[in-house]
Amino acid sequence: MDRPLLAAGSARDRIVACCSYGALKAWLPILSWLPRYRLTWLKMDLIAGVTVGLTVVPQALAYAEVAGLPVQYGLYSAFVGGFVYCVFGTSKDVTLGPTAIMSLLCSYYVDRDPVFAVLLTFLCGVIQTSMAILRLGFLLDFISYPVIKGFTSAAAITIGFGQLKNLLGLQNISQQFFLQVYDTFLQHKGPAVLRVPDVTLGLLCLATLVALTFMKSSLGPGSDDLPVHVRGARGLVWSFSTVRNALVVICATCLSYSFEVYGHHLFTITGQTSAGLPPFQAPPFSETTPNGTVISFNEIVLDLGGGLVVIPIMGLLESIAIAKSPPPRSWTVSARTAGLTNIMGSFVSAYPVTGSFGRTAVNSQTGVCTPAGGVVTSVIVLLSLAFLMPVFYYIPKASLAAVIICAVTPMFDYRVIAKLWRVKKPDLLPFLATFLLSFWQVQYGIVAGVVVSLGMLLYDVARPQLKGHGVTLDSGLRFPAMQYLSQMLFSKALTASSHRSVVLDCCHVSGVDYTVVDELRDLLRQFQQRGEVLIFTGLSNSVLEVLLEAELPGLKHVESVEAALQAVSGTPSYN
Amino acid sequence: MDRPLLAAGSARDRIVACCSYGALKAWLPILSWLPRYRLTWLKMDLIAGVTVGLTVVPQALAYAEVAGLPVQYGLYSAFVGGFVYCVFGTSKDVTLGPTAIMSLLCSYYVDRDPVFAVLLTFLCGVIQTSMAILRLGFLLDFISYPVIKGFTSAAAITIGFGQLKNLLGLQNISQQFFLQVYDTFLQHKGPAVLRVPDVTLGLLCLATLVALTFMKSSLGPGSDDLPVHVRGARGLVWSFSTVRNALVVICATCLSYSFEVYGHHLFTITGQTSAGLPPFQAPPFSETTPNGTVISFNEIVLDLGGGLVVIPIMGLLESIAIAKSPPPRSWTVSARTAGLTNIMGSFVSAYPVTGSFGRTAVNSQTGVCTPAGGVVTSVIVLLSLAFLMPVFYYIPKASLAAVIICAVTPMFDYRVIAKLWRVKKPDLLPFLATFLLSFWQVQYGIVAGVVVSLGMLLYDVARPQLKGHGVTLDSGLRFPAMQYLSQMLFSKALTASSHRSVVLDCCHVSGVDYTVVDELRDLLRQFQQRGEVLIFTGLSNSVLEVLLEAELPGLKHVESVEAALQAVSGTPSYN
Repeated sequence: MDRPLLAAGSARDRIVACCSYGALKAWLPILSWLPRYRLTWLKMDLIAGVTVGLTVVPQALAYAEVAGLPVQYGLYSAFVGGFVYCVFGTSKDVTLGPTAIMSLLCSYYVDRDPVFAVLLTFLCGVIQTSMAILRLGFLLDFISYPVIKGFTSAAAITIGFGQLKNLLGLQNISQQFFLQVYDTFLQHKGPAVLRVPDVTLGLLCLATLVALTFMKSSLGPGSDDLPVHVRGARGLVWSFSTVRNALVVICATCLSYSFEVYGHHLFTITGQTSAGLPPFQAPPFSETTPNGTVISFNEIVLDLGGGLVVIPIMGLLESIAIAKSPPPRSWTVSARTAGLTNIMGSFVSAYPVTGSFGRTAVNSQTGVCTPAGGVVTSVIVLLSLAFLMPVFYYIPKASLAAVIICAVTPMFDYRVIAKLWRVKKPDLLPFLATFLLSFWQVQYGIVAGVVVSLGMLLYDVARPQLKGHGVTLDSGLRFPAMQYLSQMLFSKALTASSHRSVVLDCCHVSGVDYTVVDELRDLLRQFQQRGEVLIFTGLSNSVLEVLLEAELPGLKHVESVEAALQAVSGTPSYN
Repeated sequence: MDRPLLAAGSARDRIVACCSYGALKAWLPILSWLPRYRLTWLKMDLIAGVTVGLTVVPQALAYAEVAGLPVQYGLYSAFVGGFVYCVFGTSKDVTLGPTAIMSLLCSYYVDRDPVFAVLLTFLCGVIQTSMAILRLGFLLDFISYPVIKGFTSAAAITIGFGQLKNLLGLQNISQQFFLQVYDTFLQHKGPAVLRVPDVTLGLLCLATLVALTFMKSSLGPGSDDLPVHVRGARGLVWSFSTVRNALVVICATCLSYSFEVYGHHLFTITGQTSAGLPPFQAPPFSETTPNGTVISFNEIVLDLGGGLVVIPIMGLLESIAIAKSPPPRSWTVSARTAGLTNIMGSFVSAYPVTGSFGRTAVNSQTGVCTPAGGVVTSVIVLLSLAFLMPVFYYIPKASLAAVIICAVTPMFDYRVIAKLWRVKKPDLLPFLATFLLSFWQVQYGIVAGVVVSLGMLLYDVARPQLKGHGVTLDSGLRFPAMQYLSQMLFSKALTASSHRSVVLDCCHVSGVDYTVVDELRDLLRQFQQRGEVLIFTGLSNSVLEVLLEAELPGLKHVESVEAALQAVSGTPSYN
């Protein structure tokens, strides 16, 4: 017997359908590709996995600094995603891990306390998974593109600026953006406080990274027609520029190590890190401070506050934006994998993660074939944790700052302002609201942007444009528009020709609500009292049905505007 | 020289226009009718004014009880509206004064303290006037009909039920609705606690009022053809039934007075009232309690809380609903007169007032000719205050309860549920949300209703219905709809015939925002990558301009769906 997956059959049929292999594959996409895995794919997955690993390790160390946490927490957060996505993910390219934006958001809410960060990860995962199960994805629909752009641009500036202190070797810089600006430019007068070695190294790293990025982008498309040595050179440049982050950080670390072993403390270095893999343990539900006070779960939750809304939602937005793939289940998949990664991450002391744009692109460009590439990346991260932590002691902070600045610069998309100006000027309003307020408090920025864009949407609903000879509604007709429409129709009737009639063309009206029906009743009565005529044209069947059901007095409906005009002019003394 | 009132001329022209007699008349509508006042109108205005006066005096006394204030405050609130509306009002029928709903709202927020009530009146007036000046009327557009109905129905039940205690002579009944229900039915076991004289008088008054109301409504239309004695009888019945409130209260008061002078305290009576006109003084900005504590302005404002939003807005809604008149300025006029009446009322110890449905109808039915009728009503109220207060001492509470119950019964419109069910079932949702939550806290009810109805509106924007052979958007296309539309188009493309093309008919799309444009760019790119074709049809000029400005790659647009289908079938191997 043929059982369609979602047939409206008996309960037993549906349970059987839910337990079928097809349904299992939808839940565990690994079942779709693992049985068909080919050895040729393995090579590509290995190369891509190692490349992404070489990108993620320096980035994770740097982002932990952005999040205000010890560097090892970056690595703790970087390996769970690969395993989870390998099992539950549908896209071969997507990599989950620490990102600049999540790290910045984290820094706002966890206040440099790893306990807060880990609990936040757990709660964030639970909220994201719940959103996936309850199908609350539509909530994200109300965050418009200008709001996202305003937020990421502000975040890019905040993060980039926050790294200036490391690049310049400044000390005692505040956490809040405006205070940071003050501290950086005004408090430290003159270049005397700059640490010359840090500045030199930082600028050198930055220049190298920019040069390699530029080389990669100016590399023409490869072709098999080229001579072997050209292809080889091309491959070399491509490889170097792809793992540029690792390259720069390794060189800088070697340099700083050489000085340190001879006793010259030239650069500001990362310093003490805890070696080894993180313990596997349940996330902490309370914290005991050094002086013995216990901070309860409730207090931590209250302290996290808006972060429990902003971080899960921004995490989902990033994950979804990356995995923008056709199948209608993509939203659920993204939310589920992000949620699971965070829940499981909280057991290995991770801070909240999401999909990374940059590393997903690297993964895709190096030709990854299946999500197994993510496992390779995770293994690289775990190996670094196990064996390289003592080396990370010597990483100069200025080199990590250069890595971060290069990673966030593309996020500040100044061209979006020009685009918005050219395509749709009013959309600059939510963009600017989000952008400017995000410097103050990121949740205020997002809320302001959403409120402004919804307000603009509702304004359009409340003030439909009326046009043409009669009155044509250029879009829907819903309750906020009715008072306005009534007034427009009355003033039309007053200025109308001797026939004292108004034609209301409703061909674009797809639905009405009860308020509209009630106001129309009022309107028709008042038109009748004043000896004026209101004629509806182009009502769709569903709308006409509703109006007939409501038994509006004196409802006149004809098919087209032409027929209406004819009806009016044919009978000058209508009543 | 001809100066149009709102011509875009020089600043001087516009100032002159603003100071012209026409502009003055728009501000002071009294200038339009007073110079043309005729003596025949005076008779009608006098009759109508006295009739409304005889209605408002007993109602004001009763509503003060609803508001939880001493009875004289009802009369303090009842005379300012007539003077203000006479000068600033445009409609001859509208009467402003205490109403059942405003009294109920007042009782929630002022906690039986006249000082709070008077300050609330002042702030309410200032807020309403500001809304008129800032043209914030559009805010009221977002309160839909089901929300208003849900609120008034709940208010009718709350007010009516609140009077049961007076009708039954019960003591110690709580203020909160649910506690009231408990106290009335459960705490007082058995009929032993009922005061038989109160119950008898109350039911008698109620029966008389209902009978007179019924007589009035069953009175056929009058005609000059009828014999004189029939016309006389008809007029008598009409007059009696119109002033039925005064009639019932006067009779009941005579009865109770007769018993009282012989020392029989048979009925629960109103008791001590302060005689004379209210003092004319600025509203109090702080209060000194009997034990000497000073409650500051800030504390009072905090205590009033949500009342400072709910009361001005509900007041405006009632005023506007009554004065629903064609000229586009009507909203401003209503808001201005309501605001001014409240501000000036606060100088004579009034509590917040608004337009009264019932008395406006009485005014209209008795044939009022100009707003001067309101002045007559105000004089009646002032005379009552000056001379009748000692008499009001004897008014039985049960008779006032009967007046209120009869006044609020029509506000509970049970048929609206059937109407909503028949015309538009989903609109029951905001109705029920408002209705049920209003019993708990009235502001929660209104907020819930507004949120639910806006949510339903946004849902329709976010999930446009797609129909037809290609895909026809049945209404606008705005950012919340884009993710959904993309998914629909992809699944259409998957299930499409061999041509792998989808036609998107946008003839109902009146505008797009930047999010839509950006998503369309993505969509077109993905369609191209997969060798599928997306063809737009029926784009309006303004939308097409935006899309061209955005330089979407591979944008294909044809005039009509037919042309699109032809283009597709003509070239089977599109790329």
